[in-house]
Amino acid sequence: MTKFSNKLMTGIIALFAILMFATPSLAQSVDVNSALNSTLEAIGTSASDAALEDGASAEEAASAANDAISSIVAEVFGDRDAKIFNTLLFLIGGFLVMWMAAGFTMLETGLVRKKNVSMQALKNIALYSIAGLMFWLVGYNVMYGGEAGGFIGSFSPSNFPEPGADTAEAGYSVASDWFFQMAFVAATASIVSGAVAERVRLWAFLAFTVVLTGLLYPITGMWQWGGGWLAELGFSDFAGSTLVHSVGGWAALAGVIFIGARKGKYSANGMVTPMPGSSIPLATLGMFILWMGWFGFNGASQLAMGTIADVADISRIFANTNLAAAAGAITAMILVQLIYKKVDVTMVINGALAGLVSITAEPLTPSVPFALFIGAIGGAIVVFTIPLLDKLKLDDVVGAIPVHLLAGIWGTMIVPLTNDGTSYVTQLIGISAIGAFTFIASSIVWLILKVTIGIRVSEEDEALGLDKAEVGVEAYPEF
Amino acid sequence: MTKFSNKLMTGIIALFAILMFATPSLAQSVDVNSALNSTLEAIGTSASDAALEDGASAEEAASAANDAISSIVAEVFGDRDAKIFNTLLFLIGGFLVMWMAAGFTMLETGLVRKKNVSMQALKNIALYSIAGLMFWLVGYNVMYGGEAGGFIGSFSPSNFPEPGADTAEAGYSVASDWFFQMAFVAATASIVSGAVAERVRLWAFLAFTVVLTGLLYPITGMWQWGGGWLAELGFSDFAGSTLVHSVGGWAALAGVIFIGARKGKYSANGMVTPMPGSSIPLATLGMFILWMGWFGFNGASQLAMGTIADVADISRIFANTNLAAAAGAITAMILVQLIYKKVDVTMVINGALAGLVSITAEPLTPSVPFALFIGAIGGAIVVFTIPLLDKLKLDDVVGAIPVHLLAGIWGTMIVPLTNDGTSYVTQLIGISAIGAFTFIASSIVWLILKVTIGIRVSEEDEALGLDKAEVGVEAYPEF
Amino acid sequence: MTKFSNKLMTGIIALFAILMFATPSLAQSVDVNSALNSTLEAIGTSASDAALEDGASAEEAASAANDAISSIVAEVFGDRDAKIFNTLLFLIGGFLVMWMAAGFTMLETGLVRKKNVSMQALKNIALYSIAGLMFWLVGYNVMYGGEAGGFIGSFSPSNFPEPGADTAEAGYSVASDWFFQMAFVAATASIVSGAVAERVRLWAFLAFTVVLTGLLYPITGMWQWGGGWLAELGFSDFAGSTLVHSVGGWAALAGVIFIGARKGKYSANGMVTPMPGSSIPLATLGMFILWMGWFGFNGASQLAMGTIADVADISRIFANTNLAAAAGAITAMILVQLIYKKVDVTMVINGALAGLVSITAEPLTPSVPFALFIGAIGGAIVVFTIPLLDKLKLDDVVGAIPVHLLAGIWGTMIVPLTNDGTSYVTQLIGISAIGAFTFIASSIVWLILKVTIGIRVSEEDEALGLDKAEVGVEAYPEF
Repeated sequence: MTKFSNKLMTGIIALFAILMFATPSLAQSVDVNSALNSTLEAIGTSASDAALEDGASAEEAASAANDAISSIVAEVFGDRDAKIFNTLLFLIGGFLVMWMAAGFTMLETGLVRKKNVSMQALKNIALYSIAGLMFWLVGYNVMYGGEAGGFIGSFSPSNFPEPGADTAEAGYSVASDWFFQMAFVAATASIVSGAVAERVRLWAFLAFTVVLTGLLYPITGMWQWGGGWLAELGFSDFAGSTLVHSVGGWAALAGVIFIGARKGKYSANGMVTPMPGSSIPLATLGMFILWMGWFGFNGASQLAMGTIADVADISRIFANTNLAAAAGAITAMILVQLIYKKVDVTMVINGALAGLVSITAEPLTPSVPFALFIGAIGGAIVVFTIPLLDKLKLDDVVGAIPVHLLAGIWGTMIVPLTNDGTSYVTQLIGISAIGAFTFIASSIVWLILKVTIGIRVSEEDEALGLDKAEVGVEAYPEF
Repeated sequence: MTKFSNKLMTGIIALFAILMFATPSLAQSVDVNSALNSTLEAIGTSASDAALEDGASAEEAASAANDAISSIVAEVFGDRDAKIFNTLLFLIGGFLVMWMAAGFTMLETGLVRKKNVSMQALKNIALYSIAGLMFWLVGYNVMYGGEAGGFIGSFSPSNFPEPGADTAEAGYSVASDWFFQMAFVAATASIVSGAVAERVRLWAFLAFTVVLTGLLYPITGMWQWGGGWLAELGFSDFAGSTLVHSVGGWAALAGVIFIGARKGKYSANGMVTPMPGSSIPLATLGMFILWMGWFGFNGASQLAMGTIADVADISRIFANTNLAAAAGAITAMILVQLIYKKVDVTMVINGALAGLVSITAEPLTPSVPFALFIGAIGGAIVVFTIPLLDKLKLDDVVGAIPVHLLAGIWGTMIVPLTNDGTSYVTQLIGISAIGAFTFIASSIVWLILKVTIGIRVSEEDEALGLDKAEVGVEAYPEF
Repeated sequence: MTKFSNKLMTGIIALFAILMFATPSLAQSVDVNSALNSTLEAIGTSASDAALEDGASAEEAASAANDAISSIVAEVFGDRDAKIFNTLLFLIGGFLVMWMAAGFTMLETGLVRKKNVSMQALKNIALYSIAGLMFWLVGYNVMYGGEAGGFIGSFSPSNFPEPGADTAEAGYSVASDWFFQMAFVAATASIVSGAVAERVRLWAFLAFTVVLTGLLYPITGMWQWGGGWLAELGFSDFAGSTLVHSVGGWAALAGVIFIGARKGKYSANGMVTPMPGSSIPLATLGMFILWMGWFGFNGASQLAMGTIADVADISRIFANTNLAAAAGAITAMILVQLIYKKVDVTMVINGALAGLVSITAEPLTPSVPFALFIGAIGGAIVVFTIPLLDKLKLDDVVGAIPVHLLAGIWGTMIVPLTNDGTSYVTQLIGISAIGAFTFIASSIVWLILKVTIGIRVSEEDEALGLDKAEVGVEAYPEF
């Protein structure tokens, strides 16, 4: 009797206190708290009753109630906040990686010639839009809807919980994960966009983007991040040196091969005609946007922020990511100074980006000296392989293949140096399998497009510029 | 009696502990914890004592202590973290929406002609600054300082709690809400800035901005978000398709009518002279900035992030917002290809923005297919109405009226399709009331400015360009 | 016996509940929670046992267990979440301040002439990279590794805890603090970059940057933020009006003096030749990026977000920071209109930035009217001192000295107006000491560089432009 009135009084006081704290706009949190209190009370009482029934003494019963309540408090609060933190990580990481779409756009519009700038802007808006649509329609479930150890997920649109109904069973909201992962797919398509610039047909490129973002990327993504066969094998690629950057690079390489070099780039006698980009400040802005976005790319790939250890690991990733990029930029700067006696800023831009790509496969385990080493080699790769591509007459307009494919391979291969749980052989298997699949599948798609709608504009249109030919809007009409 | 004094004591101690909580530096977190522990102990002891005095058994007393402690732990922790999360949401959302000021600036400087670019940059810096000042001086309290069901709030500057003293009674810090809402006001003024570009007088535009951000926007804002008569009627506008975008659009329409078309835009024989923008990459950058900022615009309009349900809803809003924009861009792209055989990138830019505006009235309840549908119609509106405005000789330089006014109306009208708690009639009432008020009030302000200081530069200044005439600084002096 | 089985049962239930909530991807949180539960149980039991051994009654023992558990719950949760929030604050603040590197780059590439734009972009990429490297190698420990009241810290690279091992003893992750502080150092170097533009030699500038970011900035930083002698004296500089902006300004002033004015800027008869910047939209974008980044700069300098009071203070800082910038912009705008009859947008840009610099020394304590006043005077300083510098033939290309040095001094001197705990004398001592050290040390470094590798390009190279002379890449080759 007294016990009941005590409970009642406690309940009333608790309710009053909750009302003191809560506000109309936070109606849901009131319900959550009051439901929680009832639950705690019930759990305590039932644990205490159970103990008494088992013949426990009064203090033992109280202690049992105590234990049960403490345990549930620990779980409920720890868990609730952890889920909010995890989801918030995906949202912040997601808008940072989404922002990389602007980074690629600025980088590419800065590095193409004036007559093709509008086209490059248009392609990037379109590919980001298509990536979102395709990754919702089929990509996300192809990537994450499969069975452990498998090769491909399921073909169905993504489904997000109803408003107010998401209990975040996965430890984070599904839609936040979708958003974060979607932005990665778009990055992959952007890589292709830069390499095949200045001569690709708009609709052919967009058709390729549909397949890449809806199918090719999600399939190899499934192998690793979807828990497929490579994940079971022990392949390791923290944030996507291979899964994102090399995949984009392989697709770009296939495109560059099938589409051919820009008219006049390579003359018969082996001369290479420089075709400098139209705006260095925009290219630089693009690099800084990408650098900023990379904190979301690598940092949020920790996938959890609900413990001190997780958020500290994210901090370590931020530091390593930043320093690898710095090392890539500085290395490229020193090398071009030594080799060419001038500091080509586009090499430094690509050096920084290669540093970022290199550290992406493992931004957590390296100590700073290793992060610097990994990034520096990335920067060196750019300086030495960009001229090499020209020797091979592979006309990669923005340097996407050295930055994303070659530095991506380097970053993935070097993971075992700092991560004991990985092996060089497995890394090589993963790189090869994903590379072979993406290159062959991309080649098939480019080939089909070539023999059907055509992937390259006419010579007249190429000379005229794609802005006039395909977009109908000049980028700088008064200049 | 004793019981009552016990409760009183508990309350006082709790209050003390909470005040201890509000300390400015991390160094005191030890103190906070220890104060909290004392409080918990006191609460437990007093609950236990009260129970014993009421003749409770030992285990009942222990249980009472247990309940009291659990309840206070739940409140203090649940509540504390929820308030931090809510405020953090406003801060992150706020800097993302603030960033949209840069987006509008880039969009507009890219879409005006070279000779008016500095002016467009200046206007946007100035309007963002004025919006902040006016929304502090009077706007925030006109909007949120009124009575439920009312028409206008109070005229007084905003007041933020002293350092260390904010106990976030509202569930979030007042200053964080002010910051977030202030950035919305600036967006409204930016919409006007784009429409009346290339011929408006600087100080006339700024005078209009003062009235718009201090009075017009806050009044109609009060009707809905301030809890006024439209809110009571059941009008629904989640993040401002009507309250922000249409309001900006109506004010822009009034401006465009009173100021007239640019010299030479429309010839007597019905010809329309294209006046293409000076920089497509900057316009594209502006669109990406706006797209990014929109995650703050729509996402943080959830207004709470302290529960799993809230953060999951924000995630759903992110996904819907992104996909509506994508659908708007893709729809515009396909339509211009079909109609004009070339893909005018400015139409795609505006298509994406119209998709964003359309989903803003209700980014939470639509499932993805509905979000795509809502955004796609937004994109189509842009393609079909931009030429229409030219037929009406309404010279809207950047397409602000189709994007913000028409897509804003569309987005608001379609809310009942996915939100059962709304009605088409009420939506129509809200759109009409806000539209009528804003259009009439804006017209009066433009008219007063026209007959007093003048709203349009001289013909010579218009021909010379506003950069030389009003700013004295050319945007690209060496080009 | 029964007690033991009760414990066992509770343990099993707790474990089951944890497994229900946790997922494989959150493996660490499982360990944390389960470790926590065991701990709570052990603590409760031992407290209860101890009480019984001391002859306590059953209810006293239960109460002791209760107290002990509640206390640990409070600490673990309060503390855990506070540490996550604090670290998150540094990460978000860090990427916002990192983003300011792009802001300085856009501002500076927009304000230099076309022929020096690539160089300006390159310098900014390089200085941000070098700042990161040097602040890791030595700067962070020079700044934070010293003794209270001291003059210099220790010379050693930064060391971040191993993955998964950071228990955030400091209340935040070390790497997150490093990242945040590193971005501040880069801002200091950017200030110098703008002032000495268009004639400095690349490698000389980079050598200066090495010393500034590795040694000069960290030493004066140690005096205050590292807990050195100025901190003990009571000097107050919340986010770095003096420690960051004036330090950059003093180093820039020394550079401007030693390097001399650009050829043709000042003629013998006292005429000043205007050399307008190449792109106003990029300069405007730079200002908006800086404005956005400043929310991280000032807001995250609160250094903690784990209590309601802290996050509310951050909100207040956001509002004050925004309004001071607005006041600076509006004041500059009105003044240039009155003085020059035209509104030079570069003055408004610098007015906004000066408002930001001014409020940085104390963005928390001022009420809004004071924040507006502080920012407005900052804006006025810019308008009146930029012409003054030209009279002194100090050729500061972007206005860095008025904005960062003079407004920085103003902001620091005015702190006692709103912060009772400070004194004008101590502020003056701090400003003077840091100014004297930085100016003298910078002068020595510039002088050494001048007599060794040379700090100024040849007259031919200056006339040709640094892009062709040092970078080998024109910024706008087709314009």
